[in-house]
Amino acid sequence: MGQSADITTRFLAGERAALARLISWAENGDGRFAAALAEVFDRVGRAWRVGITGPPGAGKSTLVNEMARLFRDAERTVGVLAVDPSSPFTGGALLGDRIRMEERTLDPGVFIRSMASRGSHGGLACASVDACDVMDAFGFDELLVETVGVGQAEHDIVSAADTVLVVLCPGAGDGIQAMKSGLLETADVLVVNKADQHGADRLISDLEEALELRGMAPDAWCPLVVSCSAGKAQGVEAVNAAIAQHRAYLAGERLERARAAMRAEQVQRVVGERLLAALWNERGYDRETERLLASAPSPHAAAEQALARILAQVDNIADNLEPSTGSQP
Amino acid sequence: MGQSADITTRFLAGERAALARLISWAENGDGRFAAALAEVFDRVGRAWRVGITGPPGAGKSTLVNEMARLFRDAERTVGVLAVDPSSPFTGGALLGDRIRMEERTLDPGVFIRSMASRGSHGGLACASVDACDVMDAFGFDELLVETVGVGQAEHDIVSAADTVLVVLCPGAGDGIQAMKSGLLETADVLVVNKADQHGADRLISDLEEALELRGMAPDAWCPLVVSCSAGKAQGVEAVNAAIAQHRAYLAGERLERARAAMRAEQVQRVVGERLLAALWNERGYDRETERLLASAPSPHAAAEQALARILAQVDNIADNLEPSTGSQP
Repeated sequence: MGQSADITTRFLAGERAALARLISWAENGDGRFAAALAEVFDRVGRAWRVGITGPPGAGKSTLVNEMARLFRDAERTVGVLAVDPSSPFTGGALLGDRIRMEERTLDPGVFIRSMASRGSHGGLACASVDACDVMDAFGFDELLVETVGVGQAEHDIVSAADTVLVVLCPGAGDGIQAMKSGLLETADVLVVNKADQHGADRLISDLEEALELRGMAPDAWCPLVVSCSAGKAQGVEAVNAAIAQHRAYLAGERLERARAAMRAEQVQRVVGERLLAALWNERGYDRETERLLASAPSPHAAAEQALARILAQVDNIADNLEPSTGSQP
Repeated sequence: MGQSADITTRFLAGERAALARLISWAENGDGRFAAALAEVFDRVGRAWRVGITGPPGAGKSTLVNEMARLFRDAERTVGVLAVDPSSPFTGGALLGDRIRMEERTLDPGVFIRSMASRGSHGGLACASVDACDVMDAFGFDELLVETVGVGQAEHDIVSAADTVLVVLCPGAGDGIQAMKSGLLETADVLVVNKADQHGADRLISDLEEALELRGMAPDAWCPLVVSCSAGKAQGVEAVNAAIAQHRAYLAGERLERARAAMRAEQVQRVVGERLLAALWNERGYDRETERLLASAPSPHAAAEQALARILAQVDNIADNLEPSTGSQP
């Protein structure tokens, strides 16, 4: 507790080492994190959070570097979080290279951090939101959360952002895969990178057609399709402009609703992880599971029985809830 | 229900289309799967399940093909499940290529199936065990479950196997990464593939040294390190021999204990997924979460409060449990 207060004091004084420490606490599930975050949580909410996803090789890291450069030109400060849920191997090493390169610039207006897979399912999505919260509280204007792929874990990470960028590039049939895989539903902005390469026009028109065919509610945001060649520093202004356009669209009540939904999802994720750990490890349900398995005709039947028993207990909670939402720990 | 009975009849008659259908039901979370599996579950348990993981580029697919060929030479039938939790993109496409190639051989002793990421966290690990169960019940002798990477999702998938292979290759510092990332703890057999390439001897001695330094309980299994060049069809016999050695080690009570633990984990995973869905969507806890968030000083404080309320209800379950484990649905 003493150390937690010390860290937050240094954090509030603008010490980057304290920021880094808090992110490490979030990443490692350190018990001191929750108290530290609570102390600075009133500063959270000013940064704009952009999530960047897309298949490997689409050029996400290059794009993020260019976006950050343009934000700096506009005197906006930038926090970058590079998250790799898929592997402790190559992805992490690549991110590491870039981080070392960037830190050499010694620009105090940029902060870069990577996180790799560890711990339980969903742990990285929790840690990623926590890291964004502390970068936000620290005062960065723009947060860029980049992932290495497009799986479910990556989706959970970027969908906590205010604006989600899906980055594609010509070739390899990725446009069709993107349409099949639900990426269009995730994207607020579709970026066709490497737009100078063969097939870019086709990819752009395919995406635009797919978006048109989709049909939309009259008031809904229609994802923008923008193209650029981040490796040649061409057209990335249009990406940042698209983000600004989405930000203007959300401003006000829509943003409040979206962020409230994100927070509810965060709480459910944290509760889910800890509830399951508590059930199995502390409440003796693991032995109960073994007993059920011994007599059930299949694992699914055993699961049905265990679930029915737990839910029978939980069922009356909602009824018993009082509107009091006091300080019960 | 009618269709489920029809499918299991065809399945028991050895129809591969019925096997494929059951796996699709498992993959899509189809409500008919549980009943169908229960009908054939008494046939589950004869196949040996090998999980294969390792960083991208280590040559896992080539190795699996060679292992399957050797099993066929020994007149063992083989089911292959290629699981890609990281991306609906390139990985899936690569698996698809191989599947098309293999199916052309028309060998009825081989069945190959791929699964890509979809649905919730952990859903793929559940579906993977289910798919192995039906391939097992169908009568395949050897099951090979291959993943595309080494993240948490891949770990969850392969750790349900009887024998876990971790495949590495020389170069890129993967040996060191493997030691850091806990892969040595996962592996029953460490395969150094591409053993004809520069650095293989060093990787092998690094791995052996790391295993020695680790220290082990006297009766525990010490992971075997074997090398091969699957692409040149060299040395893969040693991989299959190592699997046989591990199988002999487990035979009897150890195997029973390991499989019981795997089943308990499976049930906990299924219960966990469905419990959380029931809490948030059906039991009105989502609105409760919003109320807590409105007054709590941080999302973590709101999570603490929600968790305390749920657990207060669940706490007395273990006490109330009767030894009756009847057919309550």
